[in-house]
Amino acid sequence: MISLATSRRLRRTPFSEGVEAAGITAYTVYNHMLLPSVFESVEADYHHLKRHVQVWDVSCERQIELRGPDAGRLMQLLTPRDLGKVGEGRCCYVPIVDHAGFMLNDPVALKLEDDRWWISIADSDLLLWVKGIAQGGGFDVQVSEPDVSPLAVQGPQSDTLMERVFGDAVRDLGFFHFGRFTFEGRPLVVARSGYSRQGGFEIYVEGSDIGMPLWRALFAAGRDLQVRAGCPNLIERIEGGLLSYGNDMRGDNTPFECGLGKFCQPQAVADCIGRDALLRAQETGPTRQIRAIEIAGHDLPRSDRAWPLLAAGQRVGQVTSAAWSPDFGVNVAIGMVDASHWDAGTELQVETAEGHRAALVRAQFWA
Amino acid sequence: MISLATSRRLRRTPFSEGVEAAGITAYTVYNHMLLPSVFESVEADYHHLKRHVQVWDVSCERQIELRGPDAGRLMQLLTPRDLGKVGEGRCCYVPIVDHAGFMLNDPVALKLEDDRWWISIADSDLLLWVKGIAQGGGFDVQVSEPDVSPLAVQGPQSDTLMERVFGDAVRDLGFFHFGRFTFEGRPLVVARSGYSRQGGFEIYVEGSDIGMPLWRALFAAGRDLQVRAGCPNLIERIEGGLLSYGNDMRGDNTPFECGLGKFCQPQAVADCIGRDALLRAQETGPTRQIRAIEIAGHDLPRSDRAWPLLAAGQRVGQVTSAAWSPDFGVNVAIGMVDASHWDAGTELQVETAEGHRAALVRAQFWA
Repeated sequence: MISLATSRRLRRTPFSEGVEAAGITAYTVYNHMLLPSVFESVEADYHHLKRHVQVWDVSCERQIELRGPDAGRLMQLLTPRDLGKVGEGRCCYVPIVDHAGFMLNDPVALKLEDDRWWISIADSDLLLWVKGIAQGGGFDVQVSEPDVSPLAVQGPQSDTLMERVFGDAVRDLGFFHFGRFTFEGRPLVVARSGYSRQGGFEIYVEGSDIGMPLWRALFAAGRDLQVRAGCPNLIERIEGGLLSYGNDMRGDNTPFECGLGKFCQPQAVADCIGRDALLRAQETGPTRQIRAIEIAGHDLPRSDRAWPLLAAGQRVGQVTSAAWSPDFGVNVAIGMVDASHWDAGTELQVETAEGHRAALVRAQFWA
Repeated sequence: MISLATSRRLRRTPFSEGVEAAGITAYTVYNHMLLPSVFESVEADYHHLKRHVQVWDVSCERQIELRGPDAGRLMQLLTPRDLGKVGEGRCCYVPIVDHAGFMLNDPVALKLEDDRWWISIADSDLLLWVKGIAQGGGFDVQVSEPDVSPLAVQGPQSDTLMERVFGDAVRDLGFFHFGRFTFEGRPLVVARSGYSRQGGFEIYVEGSDIGMPLWRALFAAGRDLQVRAGCPNLIERIEGGLLSYGNDMRGDNTPFECGLGKFCQPQAVADCIGRDALLRAQETGPTRQIRAIEIAGHDLPRSDRAWPLLAAGQRVGQVTSAAWSPDFGVNVAIGMVDASHWDAGTELQVETAEGHRAALVRAQFWA
């Protein structure tokens, strides 16, 4: 693999010191920030994640804070998801689209108080969009990026580890619920969430100064659980069908193409950006959509570009993420496939960076 | 150095194939895209750049295209620089600020036609800002990212190489002027510009399909000139005082702090974003500003975070980019220094990632 030339522009995190001491071997860059990508190896990290517990530096999930009397109204304008029925303490996956109905980001929103929201973003500078919209619409709201850096605890032993640091009550959190839990006298937002299917939590570490103390506390408490530093794992996320903005969907996709229609209720929302476009798109339905794809053979090259999906030599889609799955014994992949060929069981060809392979459209993801 | 984990999210460019064949050893990531950072070594690349000619893949300088009857009016709203006197065929360095007068990006704008502009951006998703502003203000304009990937030709032999590929007339381009020059029947925008002080051009390659043909043509034409693949060089850009958004300035800096006051004429512009804030900031003047800093000793660590500048133990600024300069025989650096300590000749201490060093505020950059 090629080296990463670091600079201040690729921001370090409150946990970088711990990440480096733990033996990081490859970074990616996400929201202008370092995101660990590999420690021992993608496969070794994968096996450990599925058996034990890992601590992930996901500081790059930056927060956009909306604060002020119009925070709630602005939040609803930003997303076609109907926020009217969002209960207290619920995390909310919210597609964000532009006026033409195309995806700008797929963040998680947290309503902290009536006049205070956090938007936990994927990899695009949504802060610029929100600032522009807030100012243009004359909203009475402050929009900023606060000093909040999420730290994820993921894997089957997550509850055990978290209980030791935050107390019993953390076990009672429901999936995609959050609450405030105290560490060293500091009440932190903790949610049962995270970018894996292995269970776990995300701690919204507010205040860079307590980053390393919390990191060290988790490792000290988890020694017998074989806790390790980890990171979002390419294999595991594909098995579980967790999409990645920038990889599997981009600014030229609608939420319906991404299979996110269930998070869009434009008809129920009086005013949201992209409403008319989404109502039209909803009526006609998508002409292509995300699918789980199984790819034949072994030793896939790294999926660092879109690989065309072909039927009888014609392009009918593309594969955007792919990896060998040790547990399922196949190459797992995520692709976008035209309606003509998206039925489960359809046999296609995929043109990888190193030659053609047989590919199969599946009904669902693996895990 | 640590590895970069590649994925589709870190976009490849039309020239990546050529960059890899030329022996790239380190990438950085810029606008969600791969930007070469080192070929042979930072020092070897530097010496070659100053003596010969290099071809740089700067595709990551993405374009925002404004097209439509209101393109010019929107462009002026976006920047405090007075565009009223911008002549035909001029590149225009335009600070872009938010409503509070803080820097969002420092791009170069090109007026292609009365109703068509390109904004060649630094490392932030300015497209989201411009789309939000255009929609909010009801402008009759299309805002998009076209298939345009700049390729730079930099170094003292640039004119000779460019003449061989684009013809004599390219020599007549004045600094920061652009024109259309034909390659394989395609009229491309070519500007005398680039992110070095060694002279050269930027070719706005419109259409990914001609990327590699142009790359190959430049290398074939420049064999006797010792043409090489290169990239923006850390040492050379610091010597020349070329600022980097994300490194030397960020969203918490005003243009005046960045020394960009000469590109701001809010008093002359009837309506631009941040006008009131900039008028106030202009009246009070900045309380800190970018300075050239000389750092004592040898073997600086890589400047991947801000290093505090101290006077009598008190923080009075920070260094954000630094490197050893073989030609000047000193460590060259860029910093932001408080007014109390920004006079040339002021002696300070800098707290690097590996201990303290003496530092000196200079009157100007080196080259």
